Amino acid sequence: MSSAKPEEPAVTAATSNGIDIPDFELPYPDKPELITQNLLRLFDLVPDERVKFVMKNLVTHLHAFVNETSVTTEEWMKTIEFLTKVGQTCTPIRQEFILFSDVMGVSALVDAINNPPVKGATSSSVLGPFFTEDAPEIELGESIASEGKGKYMYVEGTVRSTDGTPVPGAVIETWETDESGFYDTQYKERDHPDCRGRLRTDKDGKYGYRAITPVAYPIPGDGPVGQLLLAFRRHNLRPNHLHLMVEAPGFRKLVTSLYPDGDPFLATDAVFGVKKDLVVKLEDVNDDAEARKRGFPKGGSFKLLKFDITLVPLDEAKAAFEEFSKLRAKNAAA
Amino acid sequence: MSSAKPEEPAVTAATSNGIDIPDFELPYPDKPELITQNLLRLFDLVPDERVKFVMKNLVTHLHAFVNETSVTTEEWMKTIEFLTKVGQTCTPIRQEFILFSDVMGVSALVDAINNPPVKGATSSSVLGPFFTEDAPEIELGESIASEGKGKYMYVEGTVRSTDGTPVPGAVIETWETDESGFYDTQYKERDHPDCRGRLRTDKDGKYGYRAITPVAYPIPGDGPVGQLLLAFRRHNLRPNHLHLMVEAPGFRKLVTSLYPDGDPFLATDAVFGVKKDLVVKLEDVNDDAEARKRGFPKGGSFKLLKFDITLVPLDEAKAAFEEFSKLRAKNAAA
Repeated sequence: MSSAKPEEPAVTAATSNGIDIPDFELPYPDKPELITQNLLRLFDLVPDERVKFVMKNLVTHLHAFVNETSVTTEEWMKTIEFLTKVGQTCTPIRQEFILFSDVMGVSALVDAINNPPVKGATSSSVLGPFFTEDAPEIELGESIASEGKGKYMYVEGTVRSTDGTPVPGAVIETWETDESGFYDTQYKERDHPDCRGRLRTDKDGKYGYRAITPVAYPIPGDGPVGQLLLAFRRHNLRPNHLHLMVEAPGFRKLVTSLYPDGDPFLATDAVFGVKKDLVVKLEDVNDDAEARKRGFPKGGSFKLLKFDITLVPLDEAKAAFEEFSKLRAKNAAA
Repeated sequence: MSSAKPEEPAVTAATSNGIDIPDFELPYPDKPELITQNLLRLFDLVPDERVKFVMKNLVTHLHAFVNETSVTTEEWMKTIEFLTKVGQTCTPIRQEFILFSDVMGVSALVDAINNPPVKGATSSSVLGPFFTEDAPEIELGESIASEGKGKYMYVEGTVRSTDGTPVPGAVIETWETDESGFYDTQYKERDHPDCRGRLRTDKDGKYGYRAITPVAYPIPGDGPVGQLLLAFRRHNLRPNHLHLMVEAPGFRKLVTSLYPDGDPFLATDAVFGVKKDLVVKLEDVNDDAEARKRGFPKGGSFKLLKFDITLVPLDEAKAAFEEFSKLRAKNAAA
């Protein structure tokens, strides 16, 4: 190859991706159903059986949607424009596609399917887009929120296995909004994490920490998903809640939230996260000495959230997932 | 309101979008099927009947997909990441979501549904992402491609109505790749349109123009959709084709392409665009005088593409759409 190149072409010639024409025949897709059939046939080329199965199912439903609703060209172009905007609204600290999945109930559904209920165990709830990896480690009894971020709340309980055995050393990640209804990541000038922390249960499986009373908050209204909810005449609020993620070796990871009762948005949570056993009662403690003993700098009163967490051993989790999948497949076939 | 603001808050307090809590009760979505049911119920709030119908159908299929495949949390996160990347690959001159819709057969399906076949009329085909508004007006017999862009081809025919009447003054937009397999918009230094033009049929409905022989070309391989095709073991080529968009008052707009026969990718077109009646034969004309008479500057030989176009009057188009929609709804219900 000569190093003297008199003129560089603006673009190189268009090239194939190196995949051959399939060795089976396909008819010209003259009719709508042939488009679907040809595409499904092409998925037989996929070596991974799981990908093949998932994609064939997806295409079947996607094309059925187009067929059954007779989507117009204009409607489809609007859909393309919406999806493009959703993607372009995403930044390293904002995930509008997760939000879209949330308000369409898909995040809650995926969560429900992957974490089927196990008798006596704490239910899961949606992760949401505000978890970060940089929560500070705190000791038992310490605070996850800096002073002035909201009204005092103390959270305590025991982490156990389904058989009642306490789980020592379980790692609890916990995060919440401040009293303005914002997570720390939603502030432009965030230079350190706030209203979030990571702690471990003691030798008896007990945990306890200072936090603030969460408030109901709207999902972002300045992006395409917020505009979609407006168009759908749906309110954009999540009931107030405290996020918890609990991990211990040998147990199914628990991603959940606790929802104080009395919130007007519990049943119509914009992202379908609330389950009955996650609705909790906050106790009013009007005892200055008790508040100071718990470490609240200004004393006074505080809310007490008592909640015991029950984790699912991995073998029970696996059995529940398999049983639950079979049941759904049976219902789908019926 | 005072104009003296001592300190601007970093963000304003989180606010509702102003939509009330619905006046019907919803159960806590403790079970997967309740998530779907609650979401479907919320769509009753949508005032537009069409939007309500389309969204309920979409949610039903989307949730059925998740249920029937037991999508894992990890798979769903990968899907979110893929869709985000598709959105972020879009630019003012590149539409990766249309490309995604194309390779998933949805563009072809939407086209087929919105432009159902009418006996004797020219079939439609996918628009693709390379149409631009700035094609130059040309006179009959002129060229849409600048000299040197490819091998000579002459395109001619008559535009008629389904009853055989010629359609004078029909506007034909036409565009194609150069012989490297690229559209003009794919060159970074594009300062004027090339390989595209707009012309009108004469008083007898006849049209004719100089072009170049199109070549097969790959859809872009440097984005997420190109990578998806690789993962699916599908080749990324479209058979060579010439785009045509024909409009005349009182007729259904025709968006189509002509596909010269013999191309190895006809049956497995990456975007499912080919229909049998759009596959055409190119005639070899080895006659220097004839080439010069047609206006080809270097004379020699050229390909001749003869194709008569039949447009569908609007009333026939409407009747066909309605009949076809009923048929599909009937098939869907069966």
